Amino acid sequence: MTASVRVCFFRWKWIVYPLSSIFEEFAIKIIKTVKEIQTRSEMLRKEGRVISFVPTMGFLHEGHLALLREGRRLGDDLILSIFVNPTQFGPGEDYESYPRDFEKDFELARKEGVDVVFTPTKDELYGDRFQTHVALESLTKHLCGLSRPSHFKGVATVVAKLFNIVKPHIAVFGQKDFQQLAIIRQMVSDLDFDIEIKGVQTVREKDGLAMSSRNAGLAPEQRKTALCLYSSLVKSRERIQEGEKNASALIQEMKVYIISRFETEIDYISICDPDTLDDVDKIERPVLIALAVKVGKTRLIDNMIISP
Amino acid sequence: MTASVRVCFFRWKWIVYPLSSIFEEFAIKIIKTVKEIQTRSEMLRKEGRVISFVPTMGFLHEGHLALLREGRRLGDDLILSIFVNPTQFGPGEDYESYPRDFEKDFELARKEGVDVVFTPTKDELYGDRFQTHVALESLTKHLCGLSRPSHFKGVATVVAKLFNIVKPHIAVFGQKDFQQLAIIRQMVSDLDFDIEIKGVQTVREKDGLAMSSRNAGLAPEQRKTALCLYSSLVKSRERIQEGEKNASALIQEMKVYIISRFETEIDYISICDPDTLDDVDKIERPVLIALAVKVGKTRLIDNMIISP
Repeated sequence: MTASVRVCFFRWKWIVYPLSSIFEEFAIKIIKTVKEIQTRSEMLRKEGRVISFVPTMGFLHEGHLALLREGRRLGDDLILSIFVNPTQFGPGEDYESYPRDFEKDFELARKEGVDVVFTPTKDELYGDRFQTHVALESLTKHLCGLSRPSHFKGVATVVAKLFNIVKPHIAVFGQKDFQQLAIIRQMVSDLDFDIEIKGVQTVREKDGLAMSSRNAGLAPEQRKTALCLYSSLVKSRERIQEGEKNASALIQEMKVYIISRFETEIDYISICDPDTLDDVDKIERPVLIALAVKVGKTRLIDNMIISP
Repeated sequence: MTASVRVCFFRWKWIVYPLSSIFEEFAIKIIKTVKEIQTRSEMLRKEGRVISFVPTMGFLHEGHLALLREGRRLGDDLILSIFVNPTQFGPGEDYESYPRDFEKDFELARKEGVDVVFTPTKDELYGDRFQTHVALESLTKHLCGLSRPSHFKGVATVVAKLFNIVKPHIAVFGQKDFQQLAIIRQMVSDLDFDIEIKGVQTVREKDGLAMSSRNAGLAPEQRKTALCLYSSLVKSRERIQEGEKNASALIQEMKVYIISRFETEIDYISICDPDTLDDVDKIERPVLIALAVKVGKTRLIDNMIISP
């Protein structure tokens, strides 16, 4: 009896083990603790494998997938983090209502060849006595930094943490969040992180609307209205290429164009230096035009680098 | 002719090469650039070697040597940094006059078995557009943080940079700078640096004065006076062990004791919780007594953990 049970057991293993390893091949690894991912990355680095990293707040769309593809292309091991970071939301902002769909995210990540998804809890990243922050002085005093004064302190801090946790060689960010990308690059340079930062072009819907998790919050009419961010940028590009050099005049035209739409509220429109984000008066070199507009309750951003 | 020159050349190499490698054995490696030390550390980590790190501002004394010995004991490869960090000195503080003696430091480091000394220039660490800082909220609002408001922001930032540059497994700090050690530990925990922080007991002169590079600035009479920091701590320890529980009463006694000395000026005397640095009223658990006193123009600090 004992013998036959044992035989049966071994036979069972012969079937289950190979099957489970096939499933593992297709399954994506989910890691929730700092210690586990640090240990794993340390091991990979020792083996000489290049780790690429895409930090996100989840609710993945085509824009994120473009980042993942770039990460996949550049690294041997691709890590995606999904963490809706509370410290980058100001009071009254949309932290609670920020869209989340982990299951769908895991499935999309798997299809893009992500090796590991790091999804820590809030408590895993912010202990009781948490009190350290990373802040930048001048780059944050522009664009979104003005209406969201603590936003980039939250972003820089969580990204510094994630860099120390994930230990990547390369990290990939979208150019849609242009100021965020500039801040991350500056932080990496200032704090001497030995990490290469790659920026990826904004991915747009067919009509030009920049992909964003927040687009999910737009009602059908608002979705149409939202296009005014992109079309105002395109119009400005035409005007600059026709020879317009006066930044204030262009900003005024964009304001009029956007504010005439139903349910829009402009946070800012800025024409600035792409490196320092300082305002530009006369357009004689490539400039960044960036804007943030609320459509209903949904705050949207977009930007374009335009050469005269 | 050509042949004999060639033979001569090879013979020369046979003599010079082994000799130079013997010298290298005894020479200490000085590295000045971020890139070089990052590349070296990355290679060592790949080889599985444990890197220990002692960051200093140089002008090494027995206190630093104790840190180096601990670093030597704990790591396979010991890196010392010497950098008088301008951003941790406030206006009117002693940045310019801070004592420096690189040659002597290199010699001491060599004797302690240091593998590499990292001595960057100011420009190597702080580029033109430098604008990022690391700051802590509550631990810095005590002790030295009150009279030196930007000091720990400078310390935390440069240590974060050095950690990213040197990439150590272990970093060693002295308990003489107790608040600094507490802040580094908190920063490491909050920003998820995968680095073990070791604290080393204060090394004292025979009479009890805590070793400090700043002691070099004391005139002979001031040197005698300086002992009052340590002796006031010893007296307080006795009083606590006799049963004194009233922190304010003890602080008052220390004040009277110190201020009666010639040329002393008290910055602070604090009895506080060793973890949070919050003031303690009634001494019922181990407390930290910490003080900062100016003797002439030289600002000295000392501290002791005392159990009731």
